[in-house]
Order: sequence, then structure tokens, then C-alpha cells
Amino acid sequence: DNEWMGRIISPVDYKYRRWEEFMGFLMIYYAWAYPFEIAFLKAPSLSGLQIAGTIVDLFFVMDIVCTFFVAYNDKTTGLLVNDSRKIALRYLSTWFVLDLVSTLPYEALGYLITGKTKMALPYYLLRALRFWHLGKVKQLFKRLEKDTRFSYFFVRCAGLLFVTLLSVHSAGCLYYLLADGYPHQGKTWIGSAISNFREENLWSRYISAIYWSITTMTTVGYGDLHAVNTRERVFGIFYMLYNLFLSVYLIGNMTVLVVEGARRTMEFRSNIQAASDFIARNHLAPDLKEKILTYMCLRFKAEALTQNQLIEQMPKSIRESICQTLYLPTVEKVYLFKGVSKKMLLLLVADMKTLYIPPGEDVILQNEPTQYVYIVVSGELMIINCDNDEENIVGKLTNGDIFGEVGGLCCKPQGFTFRTKTLSQILKLKTSDLTKAMETRPEDNTLILQNFGHV
Amino acid sequence: DNEWMGRIISPVDYKYRRWEEFMGFLMIYYAWAYPFEIAFLKAPSLSGLQIAGTIVDLFFVMDIVCTFFVAYNDKTTGLLVNDSRKIALRYLSTWFVLDLVSTLPYEALGYLITGKTKMALPYYLLRALRFWHLGKVKQLFKRLEKDTRFSYFFVRCAGLLFVTLLSVHSAGCLYYLLADGYPHQGKTWIGSAISNFREENLWSRYISAIYWSITTMTTVGYGDLHAVNTRERVFGIFYMLYNLFLSVYLIGNMTVLVVEGARRTMEFRSNIQAASDFIARNHLAPDLKEKILTYMCLRFKAEALTQNQLIEQMPKSIRESICQTLYLPTVEKVYLFKGVSKKMLLLLVADMKTLYIPPGEDVILQNEPTQYVYIVVSGELMIINCDNDEENIVGKLTNGDIFGEVGGLCCKPQGFTFRTKTLSQILKLKTSDLTKAMETRPEDNTLILQNFGHV
Amino acid sequence: DNEWMGRIISPVDYKYRRWEEFMGFLMIYYAWAYPFEIAFLKAPSLSGLQIAGTIVDLFFVMDIVCTFFVAYNDKTTGLLVNDSRKIALRYLSTWFVLDLVSTLPYEALGYLITGKTKMALPYYLLRALRFWHLGKVKQLFKRLEKDTRFSYFFVRCAGLLFVTLLSVHSAGCLYYLLADGYPHQGKTWIGSAISNFREENLWSRYISAIYWSITTMTTVGYGDLHAVNTRERVFGIFYMLYNLFLSVYLIGNMTVLVVEGARRTMEFRSNIQAASDFIARNHLAPDLKEKILTYMCLRFKAEALTQNQLIEQMPKSIRESICQTLYLPTVEKVYLFKGVSKKMLLLLVADMKTLYIPPGEDVILQNEPTQYVYIVVSGELMIINCDNDEENIVGKLTNGDIFGEVGGLCCKPQGFTFRTKTLSQILKLKTSDLTKAMETRPEDNTLILQNFGHV
Amino acid sequence: DNEWMGRIISPVDYKYRRWEEFMGFLMIYYAWAYPFEIAFLKAPSLSGLQIAGTIVDLFFVMDIVCTFFVAYNDKTTGLLVNDSRKIALRYLSTWFVLDLVSTLPYEALGYLITGKTKMALPYYLLRALRFWHLGKVKQLFKRLEKDTRFSYFFVRCAGLLFVTLLSVHSAGCLYYLLADGYPHQGKTWIGSAISNFREENLWSRYISAIYWSITTMTTVGYGDLHAVNTRERVFGIFYMLYNLFLSVYLIGNMTVLVVEGARRTMEFRSNIQAASDFIARNHLAPDLKEKILTYMCLRFKAEALTQNQLIEQMPKSIRESICQTLYLPTVEKVYLFKGVSKKMLLLLVADMKTLYIPPGEDVILQNEPTQYVYIVVSGELMIINCDNDEENIVGKLTNGDIFGEVGGLCCKPQGFTFRTKTLSQILKLKTSDLTKAMETRPEDNTLILQNFGHV
Repeated sequence: DNEWMGRIISPVDYKYRRWEEFMGFLMIYYAWAYPFEIAFLKAPSLSGLQIAGTIVDLFFVMDIVCTFFVAYNDKTTGLLVNDSRKIALRYLSTWFVLDLVSTLPYEALGYLITGKTKMALPYYLLRALRFWHLGKVKQLFKRLEKDTRFSYFFVRCAGLLFVTLLSVHSAGCLYYLLADGYPHQGKTWIGSAISNFREENLWSRYISAIYWSITTMTTVGYGDLHAVNTRERVFGIFYMLYNLFLSVYLIGNMTVLVVEGARRTMEFRSNIQAASDFIARNHLAPDLKEKILTYMCLRFKAEALTQNQLIEQMPKSIRESICQTLYLPTVEKVYLFKGVSKKMLLLLVADMKTLYIPPGEDVILQNEPTQYVYIVVSGELMIINCDNDEENIVGKLTNGDIFGEVGGLCCKPQGFTFRTKTLSQILKLKTSDLTKAMETRPEDNTLILQNFGHV
Repeated sequence: DNEWMGRIISPVDYKYRRWEEFMGFLMIYYAWAYPFEIAFLKAPSLSGLQIAGTIVDLFFVMDIVCTFFVAYNDKTTGLLVNDSRKIALRYLSTWFVLDLVSTLPYEALGYLITGKTKMALPYYLLRALRFWHLGKVKQLFKRLEKDTRFSYFFVRCAGLLFVTLLSVHSAGCLYYLLADGYPHQGKTWIGSAISNFREENLWSRYISAIYWSITTMTTVGYGDLHAVNTRERVFGIFYMLYNLFLSVYLIGNMTVLVVEGARRTMEFRSNIQAASDFIARNHLAPDLKEKILTYMCLRFKAEALTQNQLIEQMPKSIRESICQTLYLPTVEKVYLFKGVSKKMLLLLVADMKTLYIPPGEDVILQNEPTQYVYIVVSGELMIINCDNDEENIVGKLTNGDIFGEVGGLCCKPQGFTFRTKTLSQILKLKTSDLTKAMETRPEDNTLILQNFGHV
Repeated sequence: DNEWMGRIISPVDYKYRRWEEFMGFLMIYYAWAYPFEIAFLKAPSLSGLQIAGTIVDLFFVMDIVCTFFVAYNDKTTGLLVNDSRKIALRYLSTWFVLDLVSTLPYEALGYLITGKTKMALPYYLLRALRFWHLGKVKQLFKRLEKDTRFSYFFVRCAGLLFVTLLSVHSAGCLYYLLADGYPHQGKTWIGSAISNFREENLWSRYISAIYWSITTMTTVGYGDLHAVNTRERVFGIFYMLYNLFLSVYLIGNMTVLVVEGARRTMEFRSNIQAASDFIARNHLAPDLKEKILTYMCLRFKAEALTQNQLIEQMPKSIRESICQTLYLPTVEKVYLFKGVSKKMLLLLVADMKTLYIPPGEDVILQNEPTQYVYIVVSGELMIINCDNDEENIVGKLTNGDIFGEVGGLCCKPQGFTFRTKTLSQILKLKTSDLTKAMETRPEDNTLILQNFGHV
Repeated sequence: DNEWMGRIISPVDYKYRRWEEFMGFLMIYYAWAYPFEIAFLKAPSLSGLQIAGTIVDLFFVMDIVCTFFVAYNDKTTGLLVNDSRKIALRYLSTWFVLDLVSTLPYEALGYLITGKTKMALPYYLLRALRFWHLGKVKQLFKRLEKDTRFSYFFVRCAGLLFVTLLSVHSAGCLYYLLADGYPHQGKTWIGSAISNFREENLWSRYISAIYWSITTMTTVGYGDLHAVNTRERVFGIFYMLYNLFLSVYLIGNMTVLVVEGARRTMEFRSNIQAASDFIARNHLAPDLKEKILTYMCLRFKAEALTQNQLIEQMPKSIRESICQTLYLPTVEKVYLFKGVSKKMLLLLVADMKTLYIPPGEDVILQNEPTQYVYIVVSGELMIINCDNDEENIVGKLTNGDIFGEVGGLCCKPQGFTFRTKTLSQILKLKTSDLTKAMETRPEDNTLILQNFGHV
């Protein structure tokens, strides 16, 4: 266990995850820098890029060393392997050679041997092997997608944008490389537009390449820059085919995102539309129409707030913690539970449920038997007496008030109607759960009945 | 409370909402006028636009003043804040500076100081800050989307069209600005097509810019107008990238709209298809096939009409109002309830449900016990006697007729079969609900039994 | 009633529907011919088109006359209005003027007055009013969509294709008209490609216009033909904007169609995938794997065949007809019902349900009590005895065989296991339904019990 | 039966399916080779292609012969027809003529008659009839789609890619054919770019054609190669129209694939999002937040593993085999069943269900009556005593341990709480099922009670 703590790194370790994210961002840089370097290989003034490249190489060396100390999940057993020998063996037999070959400092080695500082194309191609690590960028985006701090929509868009930009950039650089390496300078895509293009400044050449690339990618295809020789046409054919599938993929993904985003609005609309149709077909009066539509809007809002379902699927321990945090402050205020032991209250809150009720709804109807006790958390309710076929408001309830306890504890029908005045959050407790809890704790039972008697 | 009524405006106030909508339309105008002005800055004959611009500025000043008096919803508590000091503080610490800077009359100030009437570019850029208010246009569309007087499909399309047109217009204007400001007139996108383009008339130049813009946006890309210098290419690159995501977004949105619109037809089709397959597989006779398909069509129509679900989710008070409006006129006609008190009728209609039944369906079968009483609202039913293994039509029922009451009140099986002849709207009332209501009101009970006995 | 039969035509009349369809096809022709005529107005050799046009006009006159005799559905009451005066009034106050103005033979009138045969442009524009009747084409497609003889996919595609082609054709013709009417022949889209284009033959000019139109519509935009003057550019701008929304609409519709088509395959795939994952995770043996996958495939097939749901939603009269056609021939063969009255059999088949059971499933298990009697319609079942912990096949069942009746009628557990050997169609009948039917008809009861006793 | 084995081939025969797949691949080759040959007909150096073509023809001849011996499913009865005379008649009356005409060696016949080796165009067109067999390629893809060894996503993409490539290739070849056959060489699409194009090498001409084709297909439309004469424009019009629908179809299909792939992630995201919203709205403490989110993640994982539903829909025989393989090894280890007969164990495992329970959940609560016995398959559980209002861990359970048997067999409440420590796989058995099984086998009953008593 000691060794584990000292030398082997867990893959879910906080610091290692940061390192992985950092390597992800490095890969993004590399994915941009590599095609650029290879295309404008002969340019003399890229010293800034080369220094950056060396630093990136150093980090990749560190990552290689690091990988020897990171535990891994065995695919077949699902268990974490933290034996350093097994880790090393696995890495050596899989990715190590690729990583090494793509990271070796060919330029420095070349300088030591031949005395020249230019890197040859074959060595550059070996470095392309590092693109296997693009998976790290994918992993980075996957992690961001699941991180609820960021909008799923924007992370997904950023991912799609990254893929698009990488394609455009790489294709543009390769396309320039094709023209640069063609024997007849005038018979290239860039040469037919700018004679002596090799003397142009770097920025202008790069922009031309990217301009062609994005013109093709977005299928605008002005035609001012286009393939001239067969080699370029073949490249163009493959690029266009790739773009076809990329753009189709982009569209598919975007549709999914938009569908998800529009779903709730659609649902709301179709409910409202159904209500409107109903009103129009039956020629209901304008004030009734207004009432119905207002109610529908509020109900939609209230539904979004209720989350009993979420609480219910939690295990018991978590559920209890949540209920204490949410309901205890309100329940302690209720006159019925004055002086009652905290243990009793905890028992009760564990059984409570939250309701969000839009205004104008009757929670309890006069003279109806009820099996629930209700506690108001927020909002306002009216107590209504409809004895003489007229409705008289006889009181109101706010935070910390309880109602339904008369019917519940005395087993007689409710004396008044309770109607919400504003959007109200209410706790609901089964009367049977309350009486059962009271039976198990005689001292609290006495207290509650005393409190109840005092009213 | 007095102050509230006098000086503070509620954000849901009818007049203020109209004002907000008006500001939304002003923003639409501004979004069009601003890029146009900035691009064709040097044109001498835009006096009309400048006057309009001054008027728009005045309205924006009024909006700034107005905002000091509009209550706002606190995000954390969800409550409306109507304390004028808090409102002012909040506005001053958030949007005020931006609004002020983007509305100051630089031209007039400049004239006062320097005596020149031309506005400089930096001041124009400051005015671009007002584009933050595009949110008001979004709000305008959101409100229209929820307004059921307009088709959701068209409001949404209009919104997408607005975004598209704004993009095309802005990009066109900026693109012209790039060419106008380029030192070498011939090496610009417009100069390479029209030499001495600055002497062309305004309309022709504007149309050229918009033509390029929309050609690029829709990816048509004829290539007759295209970027020539590096600066224009960089602009083109960003514009095409933006368009890629815009068009993908358009497609996604349209798909959602079409899906929603086609859902019900699809459902109907797949039902009819299933029936057709069934008929073909089992070689059913043509007349049976015709019957089945006709029934399926009518059932689909009837389903769309039934909206008990909608009524049931309303709170009790609304539900009662609806039932009275819809059912009372019919129920009053029924012979059984002649002379019965209105209170009794109200009790009964609250428990009724509407059914839409396609023709040819049996509502009650002969000799079967039934727990419901039915009242015909519209359509026609046949009374059928099938005693001798033959079906004889012995009568028909229309609006205001009741059936099932014999079985319900005498507890004996129904004497006839009741079958719909046309698409019929029928009220359904549980017999138990009827008898319960009768028990609570003895005088009405007597009347109903008398009415029943007279038949 | 006599008048109704004699002079007023019902809108759902078979012959009238045929006429409406014919008018729909005429409208399709007109939608093609009108833009063509207007664009190539000056061409001398369109006599064929003019003759066809006159014939079409005659049919439209007939339709105008016809409309005076067609009953209509009142929108507010939903009732059919067949009062000829009301019909005439309604038509005269709505569409009549439009129809008349767009059908008047201006050319003939003009010839009578001026003596010239050329029609002027204003008269052509009046004829464009007839495009309001494009709704007839829409109606035609709507009707075809609901006709299950044609694939929904292809009718929908044909509809989309029609809209596309109409757009392309109309835009092409209008674009040519723009060039034809431009004062400076060389500064037009076609004139800059072909000088003296007016001398070209008609076919070549038409194809050029359509070629430009479709190149723009599909956003290919080669640029060999493109707008040259401002007027053409304005036209192009609107056409491209229109195309943007059209193509987005096409994509949305196609996605919906593909989604609907792929749904069932997707479902099947995900079931099979779940089974495969399960097998792989638990390392099940290859023969068990084969068994599971085969069963899944067969079950999917069997599910598609079962359509009890469909039968159950039919009204009783139709349901009885279906059951008689499907089940009676098989039930009559069963030994138990030999000699039993047809009335009894009809009672029984009305209560039966079809099952499609994939091979290898146990319908009844040995020693288990059963509440159903089963009759084999098609396929084969094995009777299996598993007394000594070994399974012995002791018999087989095919069409017309009954099983489960021993357990059902004698109230003792089933003596054998019954397992399907092939995909089998089986009728299921509740034993209680059987005994209830037997009780109501004593003579059949005796017969059945005799038949049962003979075995 | 003998004849069947000897000469008639079943269509589901393993070898025949391989042959069909092979013919599918041959058709893919043919679909590529045929347009190529027909376009570059006059090229002298295609001897390689011609040899390959002859070999392909031989295989098609073999397939024709083969088809005479393959049984077929009768569409109306659904039965397999293996009568060789019926098979031959059916083939002769349907596809045979087409197959023969498209396979006849016209070149060889022509050489025998005229002495020339060039094949004429009419004969080539006859060979196009073989394209009816493209259905074999469709069948090949359909089969691959249902094969779970391959990703559905990639098989579907490959199918779409095949259609796209075939379209591009065929259109390119036909387009070249048009230019090649045009009388005026300079007025063709290729001739206007390369004068004397017929002298160009084959590769360059082919690439030019494909380049044009794909430029048009993807709607890039550079315009460097474009239709010049009317004939080419007509071809272009149809090709673009075809492409419009193809690309729309591609987009629709891709959307469906992406939707399916993203569904589960979306679901997970929206659950996590709902939890996050809940936490933020109620200001829950960070440690509670961490607990809730961790639990949600684990639960999502556990749900994916549970597959009782899958097992339950299997027929009894398969279900038993699965249960034995999965549960018997664990159940044999349980102390309670030591020495018990295998038959008894088989009875028990048939009634067991698997649960995957995320860590921290209480399986049994102290003092609660339980109706289940649980056996641990994998993972770890804690035994917790909460007598003095404190939770003490008094033991732990791993693979092969049983719990809940005290409460189940003695009918007294459970003495401890059992809580999962890691993600655990647990077998659940109803106590009533256990006691019923024990009753039927007295000797095993004694053993189990003995085992139970020893503890």
C-alpha cells in the first residue's frame, strides 16, 4: 500500500486528471502546429514555432515517463492494476514504441551527425504518428460534455468547430505542400493565380491555402483558386468526399442538439395550442380563456420545479440528508412540533414530499376527508368558508403554517377549503406516517397532542 | 403602495409590454441601418437615414429614462423589486454606461466643438455597443412564439429569416467597407469587377455587396465577385465559417419544425398501413376492407376532438366554469331534469365527461348492465332491438336525449342496444354520482323520480 | 331531396373526386406552361402550346360552372350546405371574380377589337391569378399521401420534387425574361455568354435558363452563367434566399421520412445488440448464443404479425365480421365442436385472440393449471412428457387441433407440456368464456361434452 | 428427401450465403468497371480490365446455373419450395432472359462472325441490364447491418459511401462519354479546358471527369470545368437534381444515426443536469452535491448492466440454460445449500433475478420484515448494526455469502442493515419460492434446515 501511495498514480487522481487535460490542450496546439510546419518547412523565420515545438516535445517526454507510473483498468476483469511491473509491460508492448518514435529529437540528432539543422521529410512523417494521441483531445471534450458547469450545447459546438478547423487547416497546409513540391511552378493552384508565389510572404500564402480550403469545405467554391494539375485534383476529390461526410455529420449533430433544446418549448406550445383550440371550438368567454391560459403557463412552470422523482431515486442515506437540509428549518417553525425532539422531526421529514402548486388550485376541499397534513414552505394560501353557498375568505396561511391536521388527527372532515393564492411550495405528510411516528415516541406524542390542544 | 402606482412601472404592465415590442422593432431597424451607414459613411446623400437615426436615438434616450422606473425580478429570491432606489442602483451598475455611451450624440457634440458634421469611425464603433440590445429582438420573437394567434411554424421561420438577413446585410456592408478603405482600388473584390467603383451609384454598390454576401452565405459561390487581397480573404474565411454553423443551425431548426408538423400525419398513416397490411394478409373481403378503413379515419378524427384530459388538469374552479358553459344548455333540455334546481344541475355537470364516438359503434349493448347514464349533445344514435337474432331499429336519439337511465335507476339490464349513426358527442355520467347527488337534495330527488315515472 | 339528387353534387362524390384529381393534373400542366409562355412570349412557333392552352382554359371554364353545383361544408357548423342559392352566393362572393378574370380569353377578345393576335403582358399577369388554384395540386398530393396503395415515402418525394421543379422552372423562365427585356443585350447574364442570344434556337435558350436556375438552386454555382446587371442581381438575391429555405425544408422533410423508415430496424438492432452484449459479458457458450440470437430474430418477426390490438379497437360489428372470416374455418374443424350450431361458434370466435409464437416456446407446462383453451391455426407443436425428468415427445399437433381443453373442462392439471416446433399461429380462448357460452345454449353444451367424452 | 439433400440448395445454407456475398462483391466490382469501360471504350490498353471482365462473366454464368438449384420462399404461402421443376419454371419466367442477355459473350461471338474484337455500343447497353443485380449489393449491406460484429454506424456509412461513389463514378464516366462523342471537340467541357484532350493519358482524363463529377455532387462547383454545349447542360441538370435528393437523403440518414448514438448520453446529461439544478436551487452543501452526483453516475452504469428484462423474454428452455451458467457456480458455494441435490439447485436458480446495486444503498433495513433471500455474486456489502442510534459495521459479505435467510426462514425481522460498499451483483430469490421448492423435495429440505441450524 505504501508503494502505491508513493509511486503509482491512480488514473482518477485529481492532479493526474489536470495533467491529462493539459496534455489535451498540448495536442490541440500540436495538431495546429504540425501541418503548418510541414507545409512551410523551407521558411527560414519559424524560430518561434521551433522553440515552442521543443517545449511541447519535452512535455510529451514527461508524459511518456509518467505513463509508466499510472495504474490502469483491466478490460476483462474491470479491476484497477497497480503493479508497476505489469503497467510497464503493458505500456512497452502497446504504445511505447509509437510514442518514442514520434518524440525522438531527430533535428538535434541530425545536427550532431551531419551538422545541418534542417529536418528531412521522412522524420516529419514519423512525427505524424503522434496524431494517434488525438484521442486525448476527444477525451478532453467528452469530460467537458459531462461537466454541468458548461452548457452541453456549447461544448458540443466547440468540439464540432475543433474538428472543422483542424480539417480546414490540415487540408490547406497539405494543399500548399502539393503546390510547393510540384516541378512546374505555374501549373499549380497557387502559381496560376500568383506567379512566383514562393517569394510571397508567409502570411499571404497561408491565408491563400486556408481560403481555398474553407471555400471547398463550405462548398462555396468560388473557383478563383482551384486545382490545376492531376495531383491536385486527386487531393481535391478526396477532400471533397471527406467534406461531404463531415458536413452531413455536422448537420446530424446540430439537429440532435436543436431537437433537445426545442423539446420543452414544443411541449409547452402544443399544450397551449390544444387549450386554444378547445376554447375556440367551444366559444368560451374571454375571461375564462384568460384564466385557462394563465393557469396552463403557471402549471408548466410549477412542473419544472417539482423534483420528488429525483429525491426518491437516491439511496436512503442521501435522501435523509437532503430532506433535513430542505425541510427541517420549516418544520421546526410549525406550532404542532414546538419542543419536539430533533430525532422525531428527522423521522417525519424523511417521509415528506414537496409539491409546487399553481395559484387558484384547491389543496383541500371543505367537508372532504383527507389523509394528508400539509405544511406551507413558501407562497400564500387562502382559508375559504363556503357554508352558505358563498365563498368567504376567513384567513390566510404562509411559511411555517400547517393545515389539514384537524381532519387528520381528529378523524373529522375538514372545516374549510384551502386554496393557493400564489405559486406555493408545500410539504405533504401522510397522516398515517405521522401517527405511526408518534406511537414509537411517547414523550413526543404527548407534546404534539398538547400543542394541538392549545389551539 | 401609492408611489408604486404613481411612478414605478410593472414589467408585465400592458402598456410597457407594447413599449418593449416597439423598442424591439426599433432595434430591427437599427440593426439594418447601422451597418449600412458605417459602410457608406462617405456618401453625401443619406440625409433621410440621418434624420431617422436621430429619431431612433431619441427613442433610445426615452428608453434609458424609462428603465429607471421599471420594477425588476430579483434572480435569487424570485420576487419583484419595486423600490426606485434599488432599481436605479441596479441599472447604473450594469447597463447604464453602455446605453449612454452608445446613444450620446457625437455628431452634434462634434459640430459644437470642431464645426464639422462628419462623424469619425471611432464614434461609430462606440454606437455598435447598442447591438447588445439585440436581446430585445430575441425577446420579441420569443413572445410571438408563445402567442397562439400566430402559427409557431411561421414565427420561427421569421426569426430564422431575420437572423439570416441580418447576417447577410452586415457581412455585405462590412465587405464593402473593406474594399472602400483599401489603398489600391483595383485590387479589391469590387474594383476588379468595376473599375472606379466609387463613382458608381449607391444602389448598385449596395446590391453588389449583398449579392456577394448572399452568394457566399448560400454557398452558391459563382466566383464573379470574390476576395482579391489577403484582408478580404481573412474576412471571407470567418464569414464562411460563421455561415457553416448558421446553415447547420437553420437545418436543425427546420427539421424540428417539420418533424413536429408531420408527426400526426405519420401516426395516422402508420395506423392505416397496419390495417391495410392486416387486410391484405388475411384476404378480407372488399366491403369489410372499406368498413375498416372508413372506421379508422373517423376514429382518428374523433380522437382529435376529445379533450377530457385538458379539462381534467384544470383546477376545480376553472373546471366548473367550463362544464357549465359546455354542458348546462344540453342538460337542461333533458326530460329527467325538468324543473330540477340549478344547483343540482351544476353538481351533475361537474362530474360529466365528453365522448366523441365515431359512427357504427355500440355505446350500450342490449342485456348488459351499465354503470353510466348518457346524454346526447350532437349527432344521432339508433335504438336497436336484437331480440330475435335480428336487428330492428326501433327509434333514434338526438340532442338533449338521455339513455341508459332505465338500467341505471332501476338496476335492471338495458332493454335495447344504442348505436351511433353519425359522429356523436355524448356526455357520460356515472350512475353512482347521479344517485349520490340525488341523495343530498331530497326535493330534486323527488322531481327526478317523478320525471322518470312519467315516461 | 329530389333537387339534391338531380342538380347538386356532393363533394365526396366519386365522380367529382375524379374531376378534382383531373383538375389537379391540369394545374400541374398550367404551372409548367404559364411561365414558359410568358418568358418566350415573342417566339412565333408556340402554336402547339397555344392550342393546349385554349383546351386547358375550356376545362377551367367548365370547373367554374361546376363549382356552382357543388355542396360545401360550412366551417362553423360542420354541416354540408346543399342549398343551390347559398352555394352560388358563397362562390360569387369569394373566388368567382378571381377565376373569371384569370380565365377570360383576352387574346380572342383582343383580336376581335384590335385585329392583332399577340397578347400583351398585363393580360398575362392577370392569368397568373390562376396560381391560387395551386391548392388543388396540394390537395391532390394530400389525397395520394393517405392512399395506402402508394408508398408514403414516394408520394412525399414526388411532392417535394414537384415543388423543386416548379421553382427551378419558374425562376429560369423569369430570369430569361429579365435578360430578354434588358435594353443592353450584351450586359445580360445570357448575352455575356452568347452574343446575339435572341437568334439562338428556343431549346438552347430554355436549357440555358434552366441550367442557371438549377445551378443556383442546388448551390453548385459554377459561375459560367451569372448575374451581370443590378436588376439580375436583385432577382438572384431573392432566388437564393428562397432556395436557402426550400433546401432546408427539403432536408427537414427527408430526415422525417428516413427516421420513420429506419425506426423498426433500429429497434431490432438495439435488441440484438443488448443480447450480444449480455452474451459477451457473461461468456455464454456458442450454442446458447446461437439459440438466443435465433430466438430474438423469430420473436421480432412474430411480433410484427400479431395484430390483436388492431382488431380490438374496431367496433363490435366489424370485429365480429373479422373473427368469422379468420377463425371460423379452423374452429369448425375442431373435434370438440363437431355438430355444434353456427350461432355457438360465432359466440366463441368473438372471444378468441390470435397468438404468433416463435419455435421452442412452451405454451402449456406439464402439471400447471391453465385458464385457456388453445386451437392451432398454422405451424406445428410437440406434445412432451417430462415425467421421469426426461423429455419424451409423445405426439404433435397441427391445424385444427385443440389443446388445454382437458385441464380447462375437467379442472385438473395438464398432463403434458406443449411446445412450438415452428412459428405457430394459435387461437386462445378463456375457459371461463367457453363454459359461459356453453351454459347459455344447453343443446350445444350436451354436444360438446359428448364430443369431449368420446376422446 | 434424398433429392433435396443431393441437388437442391437451401437459400439459408451456409455455403450458399457465402456465395451470395461473393456475388455481391463481384457486383460492386462490375458497378465500377462497367461505366469505366463504356466511357473509355476506344482506349486500346485496357486488356487487364477485359480479362477481369471475362472472369466476372464466368462467375455470372455460374450464378445463372446455380439459381436453377436454389429453393425459394413462396410469397403467398410463406413456405419453401424445393421442387426443382417449379424452381426452374419460376426462374425461366422471371429473371433468366435478363441474366442471359446481359451475360452473353458478344465480343467473342462478334469475333467469330465479323472477325473484329471491338464491341459495339448496343451490346454494351445490353450488358447494363445486369445492373438489376445491384439488389445483391443492397442485400449484402442489409446482412452486414444485422451482423452485430460490425458497428451499425460504420456499415451504414459504408453503404452511403458506396452509393455516393457509384453515383460520382458513373456520372463522371457518362460525362466523359458525352464529350468524347461530341462532333466539335473544342466545344465540350473537357475540350475547352484541354485542347486535344483525346491525346491526353487515360488517368488524367478519368481524374478530370471524376473531379467535375464530385465538384458538382458536393455542390462546390468551382466552375473551372463546366458544361459548354446544350447536351452537357441537360446532363448536368439531371445530375444536379439527382444530387439534391441524394445529399438530402444522406443528411437524413446521418441525422438518424447520430440521434441514435447520442440518445443515451443525452439522457445521462439531462438526469445530471436536473440533479445539478436541484442542488443549485436549494443551495445544498458541496459534500452532499458530490455524493448525489457520484451516485447518479454509478446508478447510470448499474442500470446498463441489469438485464433481467432480456432473460425474462426468453422461452423457458433458454432461460434455464442461462440461469445455470450464470448463477449455479455461486449458488453451490452458499453454506445453506451444501450437499443439496443439483435438481434442487436448478429449481432455485430458475427463480432467481440479478440486481446490480450501486454503492451506499441499503438492501435490507434493520427490523424490517423481508420477503427475499439475497446471494452476493460480486462486490462487497457491509453488515451494519444501528441499535443505539449509531451505525456500527459488524461484518462484511462477499461472493457466495447469503443474507436475509434468517428473516425469511424464521419469520422474524432482520437483525442488521445490509448496505453495499461497492457496485455489487446480487441474486434475489423470493422466500416463498424457496419454501415451496423445499416442500417438494423432503430430503433437500432436511439438509437445508440442518445447514441453517449449524450457524
